[in-house]
Amino acid sequence: MTEIARIAAFRANGANRYGVVTKAGIVDLTPEFGSRFKGLKEVVEAGALEELIAAAAGRAPTYRTEDVTWQIPVANPEKILCVGVNFPDRNAEYKDGQEAPGRPSLFIRFPRSFTGHGENLVRPPESEKLDYEGEIAIVIGKAGRRIAREDAYDHIAALTLCNEGTIRDWVRHAKFNVTQGKNWDRSGAMGPWLVPFREAAQLDDVALTTRVNGEVQQQDRTGRMLYDFRYIVNYVSTFTTLVPGDILVCGTPTGAGARFDPPLWLKPGDVIEVEAEGIGVLRNGVEDEPC
Amino acid sequence: MTEIARIAAFRANGANRYGVVTKAGIVDLTPEFGSRFKGLKEVVEAGALEELIAAAAGRAPTYRTEDVTWQIPVANPEKILCVGVNFPDRNAEYKDGQEAPGRPSLFIRFPRSFTGHGENLVRPPESEKLDYEGEIAIVIGKAGRRIAREDAYDHIAALTLCNEGTIRDWVRHAKFNVTQGKNWDRSGAMGPWLVPFREAAQLDDVALTTRVNGEVQQQDRTGRMLYDFRYIVNYVSTFTTLVPGDILVCGTPTGAGARFDPPLWLKPGDVIEVEAEGIGVLRNGVEDEPC
Repeated sequence: MTEIARIAAFRANGANRYGVVTKAGIVDLTPEFGSRFKGLKEVVEAGALEELIAAAAGRAPTYRTEDVTWQIPVANPEKILCVGVNFPDRNAEYKDGQEAPGRPSLFIRFPRSFTGHGENLVRPPESEKLDYEGEIAIVIGKAGRRIAREDAYDHIAALTLCNEGTIRDWVRHAKFNVTQGKNWDRSGAMGPWLVPFREAAQLDDVALTTRVNGEVQQQDRTGRMLYDFRYIVNYVSTFTTLVPGDILVCGTPTGAGARFDPPLWLKPGDVIEVEAEGIGVLRNGVEDEPC
Repeated sequence: MTEIARIAAFRANGANRYGVVTKAGIVDLTPEFGSRFKGLKEVVEAGALEELIAAAAGRAPTYRTEDVTWQIPVANPEKILCVGVNFPDRNAEYKDGQEAPGRPSLFIRFPRSFTGHGENLVRPPESEKLDYEGEIAIVIGKAGRRIAREDAYDHIAALTLCNEGTIRDWVRHAKFNVTQGKNWDRSGAMGPWLVPFREAAQLDDVALTTRVNGEVQQQDRTGRMLYDFRYIVNYVSTFTTLVPGDILVCGTPTGAGARFDPPLWLKPGDVIEVEAEGIGVLRNGVEDEPC
């Protein structure tokens, strides 16, 4: 079986770096590519993910994975758009008697609302209602507006995972919009790495699972998404020009902690794992924000 | 009467520039400051707005205002957050029988959803429901998290104006969130310039007016805002770290076009002016997106 190609952003020896993740460790490619590409956004813009993979082939790793601090793969995307209510029965979970809408709900997160793989999600003193949402995120590689569904996959450069951590009571602070429940600093996570997108089978029907302390809480397949990846790229690009590095976070299955009675809120000591076939496992702990 | 200090980003002679706007024209400061500050975001980060004003004093203008293309003042802010439903009776305009919420509604716009002063708003072929919303925007000058209300004004570097142009039918495409109605490329405008924020009187109770083809459609005073500027800075910084260049768009008075019967949608040939005392007039036309 071929190893999954994985390209990560990380911090080691006091500097931000990027490289290719192998079974033996991480091949740091910053010395070779750093002058051409400041970070992975620039690599994606240049369409150079495969060039990095090739450059790392056969090389001994520079760092052991346990010796680096993982960073979110694209530090400064122009935009991160998230799709809400996109798996069967997520709409029913709201118990508000409303029909499922005809179009996907979209909201925006800022990069600073995410931390990297292996880091702790931060629970702020303002709320005990920190919740998880496991999702697959796609990274745009080629700019476009009004991208046709049949062309959508040509615009995707890579895949990654997202724990779309949410401060649940702040989601409903206002009449409209979930902005303030979705944008607490480091309340979510993205990573661990980018997997180059090479073929439709990497997205069309893959298993997506979220475990909390080893127990499966969310589990579904992308083939059951209400709005598939092609639709999302088409719909979003109707109103905004998508550019390389943009990230679309494509929705979470049923089973977030808010839906249980009593609710399953995250607390320090918990470990959350978001896993998707062919991408990997995004693992994070939880900590209280220092006062 | 002292002239209002005004610093603008613009394009002239094939290059992006910035400078100080005087009655006689624009003093281009890019030759002198361009190596230190790539754009006005970098000027704001360095706290150097007043340095630019001083540098332009007594100089002859480089460009006539009619010879430049105005740009949005901060081209690439980390974030643009907008406050919904923030003037008296805006909630009643929704006619949904719901109480006014206890917290402000917040949504996010991407910079590419705005064009500069003097440019046309773009009406896309997907909708004829392009609407105006005149607003005051504040530009953050000093980073902070959980900024106290009494310290809020210390974190504001400058003021500008916003026509928070909206594709009204796309606002309600989904169950939650107005994202897709608020983020059409160049559907709104920001500018014309930054006015350095020096004293509370520039914000506390100023008149805000929107005219369409010369007729007043929105008119109110910031002293009547449901959530004042200090509150907004405090509330938003509760969940996200505000950084220099961030823009908070602070809400529109009653009288957007959607509220009339029949509605007053914008069409090619219309001229929309957003004016606030002490800031200026943001003027834009409308054009159909080329097919």
